[in-house]
Amino acid sequence: MEKQYVFLFDEGRADMKETLGGKGANLAEMTWAGLPVPPGFTISTEACTRYYTEAEQITPDIQAQIDQALQELENRVGKKLGDAQDPLLVSVRSGAVFSMPGMMDTILNLGLNDSTVQGLAELTGNHRFAYDSYRRFIQMFSNVVLDVDHYHFEHILEHVKETHNLTHDPELSAEQWQEVIAKYKELVRKETKADFPQDPKVQLDQAIRAVFKSWNNQRAIIYRRINKIPDHLGTAVNVQMMVFGNMGDDSGTGVAFTRNPSTGERELYGEFLINAQGEDVVAGIRTPQPIAALQNVMPEIFDQFHEIAQRLEKHYKDMQDIEFTVERGKLFMLQTRNAKRTAQAAVKVAVDLVKEGLITKEEAIMRVDPHSLDQLLHRRIDPHAEVNLIAKGLPASPGAASGQVVFDADLADKLANDGKKVILVRPETTPEDIHGMVASQGIVTSRGGMTSHAAVVARGMGKACICGCESLRIDLRTKQFTVDNLLIKEGDWISIDGGTGRVLLGEVQLIDPLLSLEFKQLLDWADEIRKIDVRANADNPEDSIKAREFGAQGIGLCRTEHMFMAVDRVPIVQEMILAETLEERQAALDKLLPMQQGDFEGILKAMEGLPVTIRLLDPPLHEFLPNLEELLVEITKLRMQADADPELLREKESLLRKVRTLHEFNPMLGHRGCRLGMTFPEIYEMQVIAIFRATANLKRLGIDAQPEVMIPLVGHVNELKAMRELVIQKANAVMGETGMHFNYMIGTMIEIPRAALTADEIATEADFFSFGTNDLTQTTFGFSRDDAEGKFLHQYVNDKILPDNPFAVLDQTGVGKLIETAEKLGRNVKPDLKLGICGEHGGEKSSIEFCYKAGLNYVSCSPFRVPIARLAAAQATIKNPR
Amino acid sequence: MEKQYVFLFDEGRADMKETLGGKGANLAEMTWAGLPVPPGFTISTEACTRYYTEAEQITPDIQAQIDQALQELENRVGKKLGDAQDPLLVSVRSGAVFSMPGMMDTILNLGLNDSTVQGLAELTGNHRFAYDSYRRFIQMFSNVVLDVDHYHFEHILEHVKETHNLTHDPELSAEQWQEVIAKYKELVRKETKADFPQDPKVQLDQAIRAVFKSWNNQRAIIYRRINKIPDHLGTAVNVQMMVFGNMGDDSGTGVAFTRNPSTGERELYGEFLINAQGEDVVAGIRTPQPIAALQNVMPEIFDQFHEIAQRLEKHYKDMQDIEFTVERGKLFMLQTRNAKRTAQAAVKVAVDLVKEGLITKEEAIMRVDPHSLDQLLHRRIDPHAEVNLIAKGLPASPGAASGQVVFDADLADKLANDGKKVILVRPETTPEDIHGMVASQGIVTSRGGMTSHAAVVARGMGKACICGCESLRIDLRTKQFTVDNLLIKEGDWISIDGGTGRVLLGEVQLIDPLLSLEFKQLLDWADEIRKIDVRANADNPEDSIKAREFGAQGIGLCRTEHMFMAVDRVPIVQEMILAETLEERQAALDKLLPMQQGDFEGILKAMEGLPVTIRLLDPPLHEFLPNLEELLVEITKLRMQADADPELLREKESLLRKVRTLHEFNPMLGHRGCRLGMTFPEIYEMQVIAIFRATANLKRLGIDAQPEVMIPLVGHVNELKAMRELVIQKANAVMGETGMHFNYMIGTMIEIPRAALTADEIATEADFFSFGTNDLTQTTFGFSRDDAEGKFLHQYVNDKILPDNPFAVLDQTGVGKLIETAEKLGRNVKPDLKLGICGEHGGEKSSIEFCYKAGLNYVSCSPFRVPIARLAAAQATIKNPR
Repeated sequence: MEKQYVFLFDEGRADMKETLGGKGANLAEMTWAGLPVPPGFTISTEACTRYYTEAEQITPDIQAQIDQALQELENRVGKKLGDAQDPLLVSVRSGAVFSMPGMMDTILNLGLNDSTVQGLAELTGNHRFAYDSYRRFIQMFSNVVLDVDHYHFEHILEHVKETHNLTHDPELSAEQWQEVIAKYKELVRKETKADFPQDPKVQLDQAIRAVFKSWNNQRAIIYRRINKIPDHLGTAVNVQMMVFGNMGDDSGTGVAFTRNPSTGERELYGEFLINAQGEDVVAGIRTPQPIAALQNVMPEIFDQFHEIAQRLEKHYKDMQDIEFTVERGKLFMLQTRNAKRTAQAAVKVAVDLVKEGLITKEEAIMRVDPHSLDQLLHRRIDPHAEVNLIAKGLPASPGAASGQVVFDADLADKLANDGKKVILVRPETTPEDIHGMVASQGIVTSRGGMTSHAAVVARGMGKACICGCESLRIDLRTKQFTVDNLLIKEGDWISIDGGTGRVLLGEVQLIDPLLSLEFKQLLDWADEIRKIDVRANADNPEDSIKAREFGAQGIGLCRTEHMFMAVDRVPIVQEMILAETLEERQAALDKLLPMQQGDFEGILKAMEGLPVTIRLLDPPLHEFLPNLEELLVEITKLRMQADADPELLREKESLLRKVRTLHEFNPMLGHRGCRLGMTFPEIYEMQVIAIFRATANLKRLGIDAQPEVMIPLVGHVNELKAMRELVIQKANAVMGETGMHFNYMIGTMIEIPRAALTADEIATEADFFSFGTNDLTQTTFGFSRDDAEGKFLHQYVNDKILPDNPFAVLDQTGVGKLIETAEKLGRNVKPDLKLGICGEHGGEKSSIEFCYKAGLNYVSCSPFRVPIARLAAAQATIKNPR
Repeated sequence: MEKQYVFLFDEGRADMKETLGGKGANLAEMTWAGLPVPPGFTISTEACTRYYTEAEQITPDIQAQIDQALQELENRVGKKLGDAQDPLLVSVRSGAVFSMPGMMDTILNLGLNDSTVQGLAELTGNHRFAYDSYRRFIQMFSNVVLDVDHYHFEHILEHVKETHNLTHDPELSAEQWQEVIAKYKELVRKETKADFPQDPKVQLDQAIRAVFKSWNNQRAIIYRRINKIPDHLGTAVNVQMMVFGNMGDDSGTGVAFTRNPSTGERELYGEFLINAQGEDVVAGIRTPQPIAALQNVMPEIFDQFHEIAQRLEKHYKDMQDIEFTVERGKLFMLQTRNAKRTAQAAVKVAVDLVKEGLITKEEAIMRVDPHSLDQLLHRRIDPHAEVNLIAKGLPASPGAASGQVVFDADLADKLANDGKKVILVRPETTPEDIHGMVASQGIVTSRGGMTSHAAVVARGMGKACICGCESLRIDLRTKQFTVDNLLIKEGDWISIDGGTGRVLLGEVQLIDPLLSLEFKQLLDWADEIRKIDVRANADNPEDSIKAREFGAQGIGLCRTEHMFMAVDRVPIVQEMILAETLEERQAALDKLLPMQQGDFEGILKAMEGLPVTIRLLDPPLHEFLPNLEELLVEITKLRMQADADPELLREKESLLRKVRTLHEFNPMLGHRGCRLGMTFPEIYEMQVIAIFRATANLKRLGIDAQPEVMIPLVGHVNELKAMRELVIQKANAVMGETGMHFNYMIGTMIEIPRAALTADEIATEADFFSFGTNDLTQTTFGFSRDDAEGKFLHQYVNDKILPDNPFAVLDQTGVGKLIETAEKLGRNVKPDLKLGICGEHGGEKSSIEFCYKAGLNYVSCSPFRVPIARLAAAQATIKNPR
């Protein structure tokens, strides 16, 4: 049997998404469910793929199926494409497997030509509408298919309006639209050296090809890269009978969500425009009315729509995003899809749907992208802060941000790359602005509504966004905007609150977020389900308390070097490093000991009853000394000065010698980690005594401290063996001196390939392994993060040499292989070996899933990522049943 | 049955070396062969091990066996230990499995006491000898067993000689020796608070324990570390009837080799002393006569000895090192063992023994330590150089060296650690000087012969050494020596030629070695046998020619960065790096292109018909720019000078900015290798065009060039894929432009763990892998060689945290695992994948054996190591039959 490439809407179902694309499958599903969907057919994604494999040709077999489907459509609706009396008009839209809003091209009103436009005018009795539609079609088709710049058409239209002294499009008469059409066709002839195509079949053929081609336009490619959509999928093409929202005041068009996409509240939420086509809503050119107003304008239509919306939610078991059109008092459903939503809404909707009995807890957990929680966990504007409100717009995407104003996407991108924080301010955004939106802290537009491009995209990105902030008068040429009498220039600081729509002057104090009950509920469910622990990385009591609040089950990484870097300690640390004899060094260490003990007491107390993994000193000692270059410049200056203090010079020169001695060519691969402990055991001894004295002290107070001493950068079992002996010896000494018995563990970071490769040997001396995937990634790839990210890694990710930045997303093929090897070798020797991860990957969802599958006992991440990790861990558990 | 710990000499055989130690097994074997060996018994190494496991006690079962063996010995020789009339005297000597000359203690004349000494005097009729023996015994026993300092005894002896106005020991009468003995015993009583033990059984018991203990004295431990002898083996103890070379002029003692241990010539070679004990020869205190002279003094003894020496060589199928004593005209064989020899001798003896039909080619190959060839391959003093001969000594160990004079081992060690070249000059050396000998370029002694401590140890180490250079008057206090009227102070430069015994003033021109016919013969046999190729690392035509001469079968690594560093090219390279635009960069590259082409033509021509692996540019670009610190100082100075040229300052500041831009935190892990090729493809394009134009040019001249283009530092297959496309494209372009077709390969270094871990992916784009084990070791261990060797690696090796320096000896457990993984994954995908190693390990024998076992096709090393690698490769092939 011949392969089917073209499907009438009633031939498909929702589960055919891969073939029909998201939109096509939905249209099919809605048709099947008996909803008032304008009829049509879908050309499958496979046809698109074949289009590309067949040198961008539509093969005869596929063409025949298209012709046949068109004929069937004509038969069903009783209209014919190109029929001058009763012309069939169709929309031609892209529809990929994964939604890519606004990324690919769409053509409406296809089928209009010089003769059918008259038929349409006669049939509807609305000449103005018919010619307006025709000019829209020419404009859109010429732009999308014939590649004639949009700008030229706008220019003609403006000119005609000026000639007739008119301001708004609806004021133009049919004759005036005909004048526009004539000029449009002239323009097309001039630009393309050919007449605008009059044959609707040719129009259809060219439109289908254009949609196929739009799969590979620049903005679609970028969108796919950002959203990790594979390039090979292709797009389907939906050909559907046109219905018209612009046939007068009994017509209209709108977009609505079944729940509020910002908050998740259960309420019909959206906008409509009377006497308008759908693209007017989406493009944000006219500011529409809220959907609730439809109840007053068209009460019957509203009730029907409301009933259908409820039905769709039950059917799809998720919040829907619905496009509809009313043509002369008749409701048509154009599209429904699972709605994009803010993280806040995603959480609330997921939890509510469980309570409404529509989905299970597991399904609710799978509905929320863990990384999207980031925006809920990050800071918001301090309600007590003094703020200077300068404008208010629509709260299009929640979250708070401060940054310098920029007016163009390229500049935003550039400044962000230089480490600047920017807020992108635009009249409206288009798909060409995506890179600038990605680069910005937040987005403000002066036009467009809650479903405008800026709003939809920003919510998807989790960026703060304010739309339709009409009081902003933006001047792109002079790069400034005014609001009332205030002038804001490029580079000035503003802050925005996407949750309230407030635009504030200057940089504003941000504070910690308040977490909703639904958020807590969802995480509680996640905790019930997940089978891998979540710990936090924290170096002080404050962070430890925060981590515990966020649900951390222990500290996975407490870095002790941050304690050394406190302003009041650096001089003592330097004294220790610059010591010429062991006695001098010991004297400095004796001063540090009580300070370290205090640090550990605070953290261990905050984590009472939970394990705290403390890593002994890791960075090379020169990190605590003055910068070599600065010292060199200082000394050179002193030497040039005739009146310089010779004593000072000698002192500086002596310091320089020591700095030079400790200088390293590759500090990352230098004298650090346990190598310090091996050559200066007295440093580690001091730290270990501090840990155990803190433990004993707390125990005396009845507080259960659970220290886990972690030896960093072990590459050979003998290093760990020596350090383990040191730790045990000091633990026994402290037990002896305090008379307190306490429990502790000794383990190591696995952060060097050799440690993973010889994990069987290393496990014999370790109670636990903690994978330090930051360093392990650096050594496995052989590039340092500092050097790579500034020099070539960005290009590698852009050019897809690497699928992701391996410092953000764990490289499962390479680094992951070492983790699996270490797990296998280590557990072979010691089945109860405790395994965790404490690199930054511990808070990234795909990495967490990998860790779960690899059999790790816990992941550890920054306190603010703990909720993300809890959710991701639950998802990993659900996705990988054991 | 009870375990046997004690063996009479006739109960053992040569193959019981592990139990009896080398010396014990040899005594047994010689006894079994009917040679005139003084009878005795051996206490096994296992008894020593038990001594240590039983808290340093000799257990009753072992004690019983010792008692029984002693009784049997007494029965056989008809003498009794402690018998005042006819006392048995014995030697007690250590004897480990591996020879450790001079490292452990020995006691002679045991059994003497106040009463047996009189018996000995009566029996021999030589009172002087008997009391001399007794005082020697007291001195040795007190020193070794009772830990009384040697110095005290010397002091007493000197004092007695002064009192009687005597100069030399032999001048002392029996009575005078009795006077010495009385004072010795008094000294012992004072120092040990006990009388010198008179019971010979107590003496024996204490002596055995002392030998066991000497296994763990400091110098033995150091010797084992240097020679990689396991600590757990333990030493055997040999108890043997004493024979006396000091019983008058019909007695004597000597040491002889069956062949010349310096040259390998087949001639009896050694020394003897009339009327002396063996230790007088070894200690180098009296300068002995050459063995040939024995023919005149004791012709019958000489003939007998000569016959036995021949027999021993046939028996052991190797050159022997024999100790003998003549007691009143009767020859006793004290010891024979496979002789230590220079590399030159080792080669000649091995080849000669094959020719003599004693051993096979394979055995000959296994007889020579590949690394010892190093000394044959290294440079010698240019015979045409003007040299200033200041002294001549014995040519104790061949090779030439220059260095600064030092007089003490500690200082030699210290200066060598600071990178200085030193020559250790001593009156004589002792085991306490070993670390200083290791650290020196060469050794000179003013006393001692060819078998003195200095000579034996230096030959073992392959160090140049001159002994018995008596014209040197060394003053250790003032740290200088004089020779004739010349004064040489510590720190002055001298040169030595260990092959001729010449000491030269100043630093002297050294030249390439001449290789013997036997050397070539051995390597030819190695080539017949080995099944793994040997290539060389060479970056220019001269080294390539040298490599070919040494037998290299291709170039395994041609580094192109050295070509960039030529003085006349650096400015152009900098121009290329500092270019602001692609055009500017291309202009500089266009200048480099013909130069690179010339480089490649030279190398490819030198290696005509053999493969040449050319690695594209590897180091980070900042390596070619001025040093940041120097630039900083220069600019600071300019800024401080009122009259500085502002133009120059601007220029330098601009340069500094660029240097800063390219600066890296960890250059080793930075923007280098193929990462350069990915971001600046034009650089690699230039190199590839140069390679292929050179290839085409040579082909036109009828010269077969076989380039293999190697992409460095690949971590992800996509890098190699992109670079492979670049190479193929340029190859095709050059073929098109020249009209010549040529063959080439494209491969990659495996020098990053990730490359090894994903070798299956990478193999799809590679014709060959070359393991860059220098970088692979750095990334697998996570330490850079530059930083580690100066900071902690030395301590790691000393403390046995690491078994070896992993940059010298391949870490088979960690790095080796990655090589095996890459081999398996790569060949799985591509069975004919060519594999090689081009790190420094390619010239190290254990690493070569590993590579052979891992299935590599070739090793590549520096040209001078090629012969070493050829021999090691043959040994690997013999040791691992497939």
